[in-house]
Amino acid sequence: MRPLVVGNCSQIVTMQGPQRARVGPEMSEIGLIHDAAMVVRDGKVEAVGPRDEIEWLAPSDAEYHDAGGRLVTPGLVDAHTHLVFGGDRLDDFEARSQGKTYAEIATAGGGIWRTVAATRPLSTEDLASQAAKHFDLLRRHGTTVAESKTGYALDRDGELRSLRALQTLRPRVVPTLLAAHAYPKDQDPQAYLDMVCDELVPLAARAGLARDVDIFVEEGYFSHEDAERLAMAARAHGLGLRMHVDQLADSGGAGLAARLGARTADHLEHTGADGIAALAEAGVTPVLLPGSVWGLGLSRYPLGREMVDAGLPVVLATDFNPGSSPVPSLLFCMALACRLMRMTPAECLTAVTVNAAATLGLETSHGALMPGMAADFVVWEAEDYRELAFWPDVARPANNPIVANESCPSEP
Amino acid sequence: MRPLVVGNCSQIVTMQGPQRARVGPEMSEIGLIHDAAMVVRDGKVEAVGPRDEIEWLAPSDAEYHDAGGRLVTPGLVDAHTHLVFGGDRLDDFEARSQGKTYAEIATAGGGIWRTVAATRPLSTEDLASQAAKHFDLLRRHGTTVAESKTGYALDRDGELRSLRALQTLRPRVVPTLLAAHAYPKDQDPQAYLDMVCDELVPLAARAGLARDVDIFVEEGYFSHEDAERLAMAARAHGLGLRMHVDQLADSGGAGLAARLGARTADHLEHTGADGIAALAEAGVTPVLLPGSVWGLGLSRYPLGREMVDAGLPVVLATDFNPGSSPVPSLLFCMALACRLMRMTPAECLTAVTVNAAATLGLETSHGALMPGMAADFVVWEAEDYRELAFWPDVARPANNPIVANESCPSEP
Repeated sequence: MRPLVVGNCSQIVTMQGPQRARVGPEMSEIGLIHDAAMVVRDGKVEAVGPRDEIEWLAPSDAEYHDAGGRLVTPGLVDAHTHLVFGGDRLDDFEARSQGKTYAEIATAGGGIWRTVAATRPLSTEDLASQAAKHFDLLRRHGTTVAESKTGYALDRDGELRSLRALQTLRPRVVPTLLAAHAYPKDQDPQAYLDMVCDELVPLAARAGLARDVDIFVEEGYFSHEDAERLAMAARAHGLGLRMHVDQLADSGGAGLAARLGARTADHLEHTGADGIAALAEAGVTPVLLPGSVWGLGLSRYPLGREMVDAGLPVVLATDFNPGSSPVPSLLFCMALACRLMRMTPAECLTAVTVNAAATLGLETSHGALMPGMAADFVVWEAEDYRELAFWPDVARPANNPIVANESCPSEP
Repeated sequence: MRPLVVGNCSQIVTMQGPQRARVGPEMSEIGLIHDAAMVVRDGKVEAVGPRDEIEWLAPSDAEYHDAGGRLVTPGLVDAHTHLVFGGDRLDDFEARSQGKTYAEIATAGGGIWRTVAATRPLSTEDLASQAAKHFDLLRRHGTTVAESKTGYALDRDGELRSLRALQTLRPRVVPTLLAAHAYPKDQDPQAYLDMVCDELVPLAARAGLARDVDIFVEEGYFSHEDAERLAMAARAHGLGLRMHVDQLADSGGAGLAARLGARTADHLEHTGADGIAALAEAGVTPVLLPGSVWGLGLSRYPLGREMVDAGLPVVLATDFNPGSSPVPSLLFCMALACRLMRMTPAECLTAVTVNAAATLGLETSHGALMPGMAADFVVWEAEDYRELAFWPDVARPANNPIVANESCPSEP
């Protein structure tokens, strides 16, 4: 393939820096180059810099892509999504807008169970096509790599079908086993958790179907003891641990994630200073999901500013799912974080590129446009990177949604 | 021009009903037709109904537009925007995300004065091109008719240039004179208000440059007495009155709008039960702007539910502007209203179509797809109208952003 020159960029955000998650003041350093250009060869960045230094260096056989004075960033990385599900939750959404309570909606067959009922009958092929459709929504908003969880089948075979469906999107999508999303209401809870720990986790690990496992820890869902048990099973089989914690109340979930040595602790809306200190001490990455706070019409956002200041490698992700966060846009999450979590546009960009990539083991290949790294990039309908968080409805991928190289992240 | 059949629509929202603003339970009646089609002739709706009744009626020479099983609604109407300005406010946005206060930002040359400085030097042609660019952002999100205010020149000639710039977008844009947006800091306040009332208002009225005048009533901006004076001038010259009231505090603005017989009272974030009762009593239309609450990172939204229940013809609008509401999407405003103002998806649709059109005097031509009305419509990337408020980032105008007839609303 001919080399490619991406020229006439008002700005390129390179995320130049160490090939690891960035913390504290590092999160403000986004390697911004004005009036910039980039050379791509064999799917990798060969050179990036000021236009007048780069464009004349370009090989004579190179194809020239004129960015038209637009902004270029690395392809965004979404570190927390739920792509595998059937059906929709529009009835629930309307009922909530009419003031119905969760209990009323659940009684009427709504909530997660509505999605489980629409997901279980689907074949692996159907699930794969649903996941592909949903990943395409992310792509249209500038995401080129995403994590995705299972968790809407809640039975052995359906969770396995969900994992297999996600294999079809590899390596653009990194799969996580979230069989512990909720207790299935048609099965004995203990027998279900036994099955997850004793069958699904070993199976997923042996077949290489998932990189991590995940669990929803909350009153009425899985307990601290359940999480300890799943963590042990994951460790025994070489899988990493991600956790949904402290979303609806501070139940000590951040401390639990720290004790269990989780790779990521996600949500954290109700995590306070103690939880933040515990995460920092244990080196757990916080994955913050403002889209679900917005989607549920709540007002308590996680303490993003405090987490950055505590030296945590903060990540922002969409939590894309059919119920609480029908949000495919990482830009919208950045917009929320700047307005309601006191993070700056630069910190937010770090949180959706290099820091997100690091939670997927892709910090040496993705989330930055440095020589040798994958040439996954987006040309935006914007000139200044701050526009991405300022008006996410205006700053969108230009033309063909994403000019991303189709070469692959290394297998997790 | 050949007649047009818009066929194979999963749903058409017709807004069938009386050709006036809808109130109370009427706001839930959106004239929904499933598996629908529409016939358009000479820029007007000729027939609309179930597909199996309509498609065979279609004239044999009609062009067929296959909506592909998608949703069709009337073109949306945005009843409160600020399209005429130069420059941007990205520095202010970044400073706010860093925790800077309004006073600090103003001292650093930020706030409205930054936009005034970037707007005043622009020629009428430059202003027209800025306004056109901004209107195009609205169109790309499904808006086909919008009100737009002046208010970023704050001097006689600049406000006139701004009005003239808006004439170039007529009749898609209905102009409002908002010279009373803020007191210019380089002029004597009283002399400025004299000029507005004694020169600009008569001039705008005589030359037919504006349909209404508007004023920003708030502590530190214009007083109740100022508003009374402007209202008198407007009435004397046959212009209607729109007002920005109760945005930052309840200063009795709703009661004032009621007393002055305003056409609309806009913002109303801090309006309580008394203000609502006064608006209802006086027949003033509330125009609610949740995008600016979101844009400013605030949490107090106007009492949309209570206003609908009080029988007010509630309108939702974007308040699109460079500072507080960089939001071009009425769908996003609907999404906020469903989640944070307890309005339903159907009520929200009424608020951005027929009720918005009524504030612009367009209730007999726009905001509904009834026989004889303008064939302004949008084909959406959605099948169910509730998706518009559920996931505004996903439900977007299909293909060519808007399939809207280019025929014009009647002159205001």
